[in-house]
Amino acid sequence: MALKKKPVTGMKDILPAEMQVRGYVLGQIRETYKSFGFSELETPSVEHIENLLSKQGGDNEKLIFKVLKRGEKLNLASAENENDLADSGLRYDLTLPLSRYYANNAAVLPSPFKALQIGNVWRADRPQKGRFRQFMQCDIDILGDATNQAEIELITATTSALSKICPENRFEVRINDRRFLRAMALYSGFPEEEIEKVFIIVDKMDKIGAQGVRDELCENGFRAESADQYLSLMSGVRNDAEGVRRMGEKLAGFLEDGAAGNLAQIMDAVTEISGKSFGLIFDPTLVRGMGYYTGTIFEVSMEGLGVSVAGGGRYDRMIGKFTGMDTPACGFSIGFERIVTILMDSGFIVPSKSAKEAWLFEKNMDAGRLSAIMKEAMAARAEGKTILVAQMNKNKKFQKEQLVKEGYSEWKEFYREELKR
Amino acid sequence: MALKKKPVTGMKDILPAEMQVRGYVLGQIRETYKSFGFSELETPSVEHIENLLSKQGGDNEKLIFKVLKRGEKLNLASAENENDLADSGLRYDLTLPLSRYYANNAAVLPSPFKALQIGNVWRADRPQKGRFRQFMQCDIDILGDATNQAEIELITATTSALSKICPENRFEVRINDRRFLRAMALYSGFPEEEIEKVFIIVDKMDKIGAQGVRDELCENGFRAESADQYLSLMSGVRNDAEGVRRMGEKLAGFLEDGAAGNLAQIMDAVTEISGKSFGLIFDPTLVRGMGYYTGTIFEVSMEGLGVSVAGGGRYDRMIGKFTGMDTPACGFSIGFERIVTILMDSGFIVPSKSAKEAWLFEKNMDAGRLSAIMKEAMAARAEGKTILVAQMNKNKKFQKEQLVKEGYSEWKEFYREELKR
Repeated sequence: MALKKKPVTGMKDILPAEMQVRGYVLGQIRETYKSFGFSELETPSVEHIENLLSKQGGDNEKLIFKVLKRGEKLNLASAENENDLADSGLRYDLTLPLSRYYANNAAVLPSPFKALQIGNVWRADRPQKGRFRQFMQCDIDILGDATNQAEIELITATTSALSKICPENRFEVRINDRRFLRAMALYSGFPEEEIEKVFIIVDKMDKIGAQGVRDELCENGFRAESADQYLSLMSGVRNDAEGVRRMGEKLAGFLEDGAAGNLAQIMDAVTEISGKSFGLIFDPTLVRGMGYYTGTIFEVSMEGLGVSVAGGGRYDRMIGKFTGMDTPACGFSIGFERIVTILMDSGFIVPSKSAKEAWLFEKNMDAGRLSAIMKEAMAARAEGKTILVAQMNKNKKFQKEQLVKEGYSEWKEFYREELKR
Repeated sequence: MALKKKPVTGMKDILPAEMQVRGYVLGQIRETYKSFGFSELETPSVEHIENLLSKQGGDNEKLIFKVLKRGEKLNLASAENENDLADSGLRYDLTLPLSRYYANNAAVLPSPFKALQIGNVWRADRPQKGRFRQFMQCDIDILGDATNQAEIELITATTSALSKICPENRFEVRINDRRFLRAMALYSGFPEEEIEKVFIIVDKMDKIGAQGVRDELCENGFRAESADQYLSLMSGVRNDAEGVRRMGEKLAGFLEDGAAGNLAQIMDAVTEISGKSFGLIFDPTLVRGMGYYTGTIFEVSMEGLGVSVAGGGRYDRMIGKFTGMDTPACGFSIGFERIVTILMDSGFIVPSKSAKEAWLFEKNMDAGRLSAIMKEAMAARAEGKTILVAQMNKNKKFQKEQLVKEGYSEWKEFYREELKR
């Protein structure tokens, strides 16, 4: 029986043209983040099942690719459910493995630690267009810094990277704080123990609008007065640092001291450092899905495309799950696959550093002569050129057209008898 | 209960210092191979279990990390063995996925296709020092070229990459052909149907020596005369192209026509193209483990280290398992982890492109002033510098020592009052 030619469901073979774009984007991201002093690290793709199922991943925990136990540890007869069969799984994000990594290696890492992590993650999501079960994430995190310098650095570094990659697109950073969301909910009279449920509904604002959110809150048994109060708090808010300060005054008594000043300071600093090269907006409706956020949250969207291309926030209580002692942590993740799709769809051509030459030789070329050609090619490569040495096809015109698509622009042709050349 | 801090058994967290070396080596490999016109591609880490278990992977098939079926497909009650539970697994090499990829995408790929693939593979091997269950492979392959230009290119490209990465180490390429091994076995009177078994024993030559091989052949029921004949054929052979030709003459009648001329031509061409910058040796004892090789095989070892750092060969019958039609294929894989270990052990320092500056600011710096410093840092980064902006620790001397280890060599210090500066 023939073997299976297609990749497994929901995963994809990446063709050379897309690889070029991916390589270019990764290069820009690495270069930018490294210029800010971030250090690259790597965690294994496979993670303990106990860690993956520890409620740090929200709905992603339902999408884990679980890895079967091996050897004697696998006991099919006594297994009652799938968790008896698996001892590990593929990571669904880079944040949980980073927290484990930091807990494991903090003694030999600088403090604060500015981490850069680039790698694939896996989620057994329902396959749909443009969404794959294996995809790449590019995260930066600052671990061990409780001050808002962490947020300021993360935002300036990520927007620098995005500006380099997509200089044509104007983008917008929306920012909020989980503590604001919480204070607004308490101010509006929602019961404290139901706040997470309120957030999940408010998170749908983009999709269903304010009226939709109001309806859903009421359908879920919340008081209409609370819903109205909450929505009116959110509407008509100034979207700059001054708006943050005013909201802070309004929420006095419900909001943690210093939270408003902290957020306003982040906005002021980012504006001062980066100028007005992108929009920076206080958005009290921003929730971000993950339950582990404890403070500032942020999201970047491209103007005109309406999709989020990066997001992150502060998660001061995840590392403590590993060490027993909380460590301040804040991170920003670039939606690498979205960026690649945007560039591919726009017909982006990767700028090449040097001319690519194709040297075509006639079929049945004498071995000694071919060696001489290949030796000459070696010398040209040593000067930094890309030289493809390839046999001339019967349809040379078509062959050259294909090579042009791969970026070749200069040619040499070699024939068996020098006279024909 | 606290979560698990250590990585899963046999896998490792990679620290920033090693990541720098890895990034450097990957950069050199990519740059070299791309200058030869190889195109990078990527296959999913997860592969169909049917493909992984199709006898292309030899002993590696016993080491597969299997991925549990999901949702309704997982039926624990009716499962009789572990293969009923898994529909996929982590790839154990890059060659099998490449063959599937080529079968799936040949219509849109150039012919011949010069492929570069860099990625992690997973094997549930017994954990031991320096050997991990997740490790990176760097492969080049030429698919669709039946001529020995493929071998010549693969050898010159890989030795070019190795020379750039380890300019201090002299290395040696040993070369053989599976058809030679086969002809030598038939010439010595081994039964044709037992030849694979003979190869497995001969493959131990490095470890147990000629006498050990003779003993083991006899213990396995082979005739002592055959063993002696085989070993005498292998000993005292000239290790150059002339040795290949003479061996070819001796094996006339047993060896496929043209096989000796082909191998001798490869050796002549590589010597002509690359000069004598590395050793190139005909080694009739070279077997290489994988059963899928059909012709030329080669292996690179570092002088003085006695370990193989790269290996490969021709496997003309794997792609046919997917398409029903054989496609010539030849590949070379660099032992990336070995190279990294050699460099790390030798105290290799990654050459940095530009000076790395650390700008340290005093604790409780005024927010406005800190923004101004960070803005200045942005301008310096735009000029290509790496600028780390970090809070000054109490023990500044220790902090700077740590930063020196990370490659920082220039300093600026900022204090709350300018006078103290």
